[in-house]
Amino acid sequence: GFATAAQSNKVTIGLIPADGIGREVIPAARQVLESLPKSESSPRFEFIHLDAGFEHFQKHGVALPDETLARLRGECQGALFGAVSSPSHKVAGYSSPIVALRKHLDLYANVRPVASVAGSGQKQLDMLIIRENTECLYIKQERIETDANGLKVAWADRKISEYASRRAGQMAFNMALMRDKLRSNVPASERLWQGKPKVTIVHKSNVLSVTDGLWRETVRGVKENNPAFAGVDMDEQLVDSMVYRMFREPEAFDVVVAPNLYGDIISDGAAALVGSLGLVPSANVGDNFVVGEPVHGSAPDIAGQQKANPIAAIRSAGLLLEHMGYSADAARIYQAVDGVLREGLIKTPDIGGKSTTQEVTDAICKRL
Amino acid sequence: GFATAAQSNKVTIGLIPADGIGREVIPAARQVLESLPKSESSPRFEFIHLDAGFEHFQKHGVALPDETLARLRGECQGALFGAVSSPSHKVAGYSSPIVALRKHLDLYANVRPVASVAGSGQKQLDMLIIRENTECLYIKQERIETDANGLKVAWADRKISEYASRRAGQMAFNMALMRDKLRSNVPASERLWQGKPKVTIVHKSNVLSVTDGLWRETVRGVKENNPAFAGVDMDEQLVDSMVYRMFREPEAFDVVVAPNLYGDIISDGAAALVGSLGLVPSANVGDNFVVGEPVHGSAPDIAGQQKANPIAAIRSAGLLLEHMGYSADAARIYQAVDGVLREGLIKTPDIGGKSTTQEVTDAICKRL
Ligand SMILES: CC(C)[C@H](C(=O)O)[C@@H](O)C(=O)O
Ligand SMILES: CC(C)[C@H](C(=O)O)[C@@H](O)C(=O)O
Repeated sequence: GFATAAQSNKVTIGLIPADGIGREVIPAARQVLESLPKSESSPRFEFIHLDAGFEHFQKHGVALPDETLARLRGECQGALFGAVSSPSHKVAGYSSPIVALRKHLDLYANVRPVASVAGSGQKQLDMLIIRENTECLYIKQERIETDANGLKVAWADRKISEYASRRAGQMAFNMALMRDKLRSNVPASERLWQGKPKVTIVHKSNVLSVTDGLWRETVRGVKENNPAFAGVDMDEQLVDSMVYRMFREPEAFDVVVAPNLYGDIISDGAAALVGSLGLVPSANVGDNFVVGEPVHGSAPDIAGQQKANPIAAIRSAGLLLEHMGYSADAARIYQAVDGVLREGLIKTPDIGGKSTTQEVTDAICKRL
Repeated sequence: GFATAAQSNKVTIGLIPADGIGREVIPAARQVLESLPKSESSPRFEFIHLDAGFEHFQKHGVALPDETLARLRGECQGALFGAVSSPSHKVAGYSSPIVALRKHLDLYANVRPVASVAGSGQKQLDMLIIRENTECLYIKQERIETDANGLKVAWADRKISEYASRRAGQMAFNMALMRDKLRSNVPASERLWQGKPKVTIVHKSNVLSVTDGLWRETVRGVKENNPAFAGVDMDEQLVDSMVYRMFREPEAFDVVVAPNLYGDIISDGAAALVGSLGLVPSANVGDNFVVGEPVHGSAPDIAGQQKANPIAAIRSAGLLLEHMGYSADAARIYQAVDGVLREGLIKTPDIGGKSTTQEVTDAICKRL
């Protein structure tokens, strides 16, 4: 992380609940981290609360305060971000704080594992989406003009660089090898993915031959130029076909790597396949910092009612630990969550239950 | 159409099979048009064969010959386009002929109805996607540079204009009223959509506040400025949430209107919900011309084997007639297709059968 831990194993985590149900699921994730059994190798956590979000913007005129960024950089080894409300219309001066955070901390890969629960009766899948996290249309370079007839014409720039594409590609191939290694610990009969590790490159180079052409070529080059990745299969899918195939044959994907906007869309689609956005975590990963972030939004319609599913945030805390190097503690969290889901007794309304955010959190803590 | 019919009811249709299975499904659609029972009001067809596609490009260096465009403009009232192969890498001088056709003929709305077959046991849905068809990233203004470190940086322009957004929006609200009128002929118990007609606007204005902000505002303005649309409900959905909700609650959508690229992705997703891309038709509609086009691609893996599902192309022929003003003949085609699907005996492999392209086509013709 940016801030070096003063004592060994002391880890300072910035908590940024932001808006809506972010304020329920981030405390839930914190409770799980605090409930992890203490061992020699596991971290001792300190938490600091940090502001951001649309509501903060409405009160103070700024969505991502300088202080939040400064304290993340100066005091934290990682962070958990809740969710942010989006005004449906343009509000002067407002811009999404999570997009800004990704940019300011150079969190270049958004890592989104989506896996079905064994025995859930749903389509079986176990995929990892790596979303490039810094460019594409998310650079937000936009402008508006008036044409000769007095009508408005708006423009946005889409940027795809070799540099960012390569970093995202490297993350994808590295994660494919890592997943393959972890799978080797699972009995063959229980493995959903049986083949060699695989990376699927998503693009639309039949239309965007220059930008997506560069993306595709660069990610392919990551494998072609590195013998360490010789054992990883590679294929590709146009983004429209990707959404189609993901719904028809989700078991056909291992690691999927996509430019920013396609990655955003695909991960919501994958979430639908496993039953709820409330289950899907993500980690915004850079070379020096990690921010865990549930994929869901701020859900103003259910905020403050103890109806939010805390699992996406809790799994995001697991991803945070994993990418900070505490994989044993991360595995404990994943297993506790899987145990509660497999048992199927304690669940929030989004996945067909009646339990509260707190009840689900407590059930997970009990299994740690 | 551009060319005025010389004798009344004589309709000249350009047939552009292009690549792969386009060469099987376009003849199937032609056979259906020719098998329509003749009445006073129904058209007399003439067909002319026109070249285009990747294979044509490989042989002759051009993907959309000038002659094809000239004959469409000079001799035809509408056209049917098959499918086009996409080279996975950039091929100098090649550019998708269907994208070019949409642009040259100013076919500003891509109309894509997606409906489940009653009693299929699948999720029930009956939605109409209106995809803006001329701009967004499809303007293909791209360039590449080298940065200070010698690395490549590619850029694409995304254009959203008030003019194009308004035309797409108007099409959406008009179609919502039209669908509502047609539904009133269906017994209430058989109607999937029970409420007032509704248009859902898809955008990503939480990130693209200028371009998608203009899109959203303009489409909203179409309703707000026209009392004829007072009876049509309007809501909106971020593109990522749209993909999620479409899979969770597809019955929540009536007409959906989206910028070009989102529309491309969403319609493939909707196709997955009804079981196969081989079922989903589209019409590229302008003020003066219509091109019917199945949503599927050229499927080189099954081309030439009589395995292609002709239904998407046949329904596209129906849409072509509908948008040329021959709605009674269009309805005959839709009903014949629905009859064959509901019976479920004669079907191609993509939807779980063993019948050939020809057998499905013959079965549909028999029911006309
Ligand atoms: C809130 C929004 C800006 C964000 C995004 O589009 O990246 C969200 O959808 C996500 O997936 O993290
Ligand atoms: C072939 C391709 C250029 C095209 C598109 O992206 O528009 C296709 O996917 C479609 O949906 O018609």
